[in-house]
Amino acid sequence: MKARQIVLRSRPIGMPTENNFGFEEIEISAPKDGEVLLKSQYISVDPYMRGRMSDEESYIKPFELGKPIDGGAIATVIESKSDILKKGDRVVGMLPWATYSKDKADRLRKIHTDEFPDGYYLGVLGMPGLTAYFGVMDICQPRYGETMVISGAAGAVGLVAGQIARIQGCKVLGITGSDEKVNVLKNEFGFDMAINYKTTKDLSGTISELCPKGVDCYFDNVGGEVSEAIIAHLNYHARIALCGQIASYNTATQEMGPRLLPQILSKSGTIKGFIVGDYQKRFLEGLSHLMTWLKEGKLHYTETIIDGFDKLPYAFLGLFSGKNIGKMLVKVNE
Amino acid sequence: MKARQIVLRSRPIGMPTENNFGFEEIEISAPKDGEVLLKSQYISVDPYMRGRMSDEESYIKPFELGKPIDGGAIATVIESKSDILKKGDRVVGMLPWATYSKDKADRLRKIHTDEFPDGYYLGVLGMPGLTAYFGVMDICQPRYGETMVISGAAGAVGLVAGQIARIQGCKVLGITGSDEKVNVLKNEFGFDMAINYKTTKDLSGTISELCPKGVDCYFDNVGGEVSEAIIAHLNYHARIALCGQIASYNTATQEMGPRLLPQILSKSGTIKGFIVGDYQKRFLEGLSHLMTWLKEGKLHYTETIIDGFDKLPYAFLGLFSGKNIGKMLVKVNE
Repeated sequence: MKARQIVLRSRPIGMPTENNFGFEEIEISAPKDGEVLLKSQYISVDPYMRGRMSDEESYIKPFELGKPIDGGAIATVIESKSDILKKGDRVVGMLPWATYSKDKADRLRKIHTDEFPDGYYLGVLGMPGLTAYFGVMDICQPRYGETMVISGAAGAVGLVAGQIARIQGCKVLGITGSDEKVNVLKNEFGFDMAINYKTTKDLSGTISELCPKGVDCYFDNVGGEVSEAIIAHLNYHARIALCGQIASYNTATQEMGPRLLPQILSKSGTIKGFIVGDYQKRFLEGLSHLMTWLKEGKLHYTETIIDGFDKLPYAFLGLFSGKNIGKMLVKVNE
Repeated sequence: MKARQIVLRSRPIGMPTENNFGFEEIEISAPKDGEVLLKSQYISVDPYMRGRMSDEESYIKPFELGKPIDGGAIATVIESKSDILKKGDRVVGMLPWATYSKDKADRLRKIHTDEFPDGYYLGVLGMPGLTAYFGVMDICQPRYGETMVISGAAGAVGLVAGQIARIQGCKVLGITGSDEKVNVLKNEFGFDMAINYKTTKDLSGTISELCPKGVDCYFDNVGGEVSEAIIAHLNYHARIALCGQIASYNTATQEMGPRLLPQILSKSGTIKGFIVGDYQKRFLEGLSHLMTWLKEGKLHYTETIIDGFDKLPYAFLGLFSGKNIGKMLVKVNE
């Protein structure tokens, strides 16, 4: 059968463009034993994928030139040669950016329930939600009454991280990039405070005013000047969960900033970079908490869904200009 | 009785000078109940004391203008009004920079044995040795065969940290500031490798060559460009024990450097600033290991002893130009 897929046509230097992606039509052969044929439903775009576009050593191997981009996706089984999955099953897995694909059934995870919308398994009940959970609970380890700052607060991870911090009894300040997001964070997601870093003239002074007791925990999705302004106000024994550095993903040269190690030392602070895969053995614990909080109404969630397979590059690039509130997904309508 | 003491005459901006210190003659009244009169034997000078010369909030309060500097010292009890200590006892404690002083007996720790030279209790068996122990064992948690880099490797802490890393089975690279120290580290203290950062043209390239498997642990006493060169070669899940930042203690303005958080994130690294006081409950564990390694000949130690109370400011300032190998102490001969 015929399918369309999106490949890495060229590696970006600095900010990627639509030209880095190429569309191809391909023929998919019939599934062999143990394989299933899949129809893509939702495809996830995530900031970490920018790293895979470059040819750099990392915890996950780079995309290959001329080969399809792959990432988190939800698909429906349309034909099965496996005992594990049957036609009509919905699955989540690492799939190519393609309208249809073929895969080994044992590489996929079946969605067993209709309690939550399918898209949740790419967001609050997927990698972003688990990332938020372990970053807050294991790295920040917040105590009741502490102050936590979240950068990239309206993104897929930040939105969940801030709410988990609230559930733990923290006073939470979200840093985000538009007035609309400030309102959403405060009015729909219960953040105690939120600011638009793009229009805040004295970011460091404002953080100091909003966090009069200092910053105990910082969940960093962004890096750059925002992080530098926050790190200036750490409390003794502060903890920083280093989850993302989106501000620097598209810089082609080494950026300079104030040296931070002296500040970290003087506060006996901890900075821990992590990826959710480090916590694989505890995924069930995380999922169980996230599901419970969702059902109890303590945790809210939202998605920015872009319609149409062809919009995948557009949606991905939109992550770097802050087009999304919550998880950015592309709905495949073919 | 009469004594001489050294007070903070003025707060330095940037590098301190001898003019920041003032000498005074004082009268010490007879000890009251619970107090002892002390004759200073050895006074410790330590890089962290630079922070206390500034009027900045920290884990330890600043020295007061016009009041004596205080720090680690070993003294002999010459008169006692306490049941805890008797005349002739040797003690270690936080004492003023003075030839004689008076203190509450319960603030002092008695030296019970002659197994080790008294000076060791300000070094390898004092705060520097314990700092090295917990930084390596608790923060770096090295595994057999890993590569550990130590900056400030010939200092009181670095010298011990490097040897503990060797005892744990690490391959150890020491970074230091003179060819003499390079030789000492390699030939007397068993460091696998050592380099003089002042004469190494391409520091980053040299570290890369000497650590072909990358850097798993970094024990940082120095900061600045040396740390930046090392952090460029971290392995996945690398651990950095942030113990000192002597390169920046005397800079009056905010220094700029390459942004390090993206590198830490991409390696899922951990940076943890600490002071030895965080480990108070485990001091006996640390001391017991350090004493055992000393007795077994696995751990070696050296001191740079400057003669004469008047030389205290000189000795302290010498820390910032690398005049010491191992612990810098002043012997009080009055």
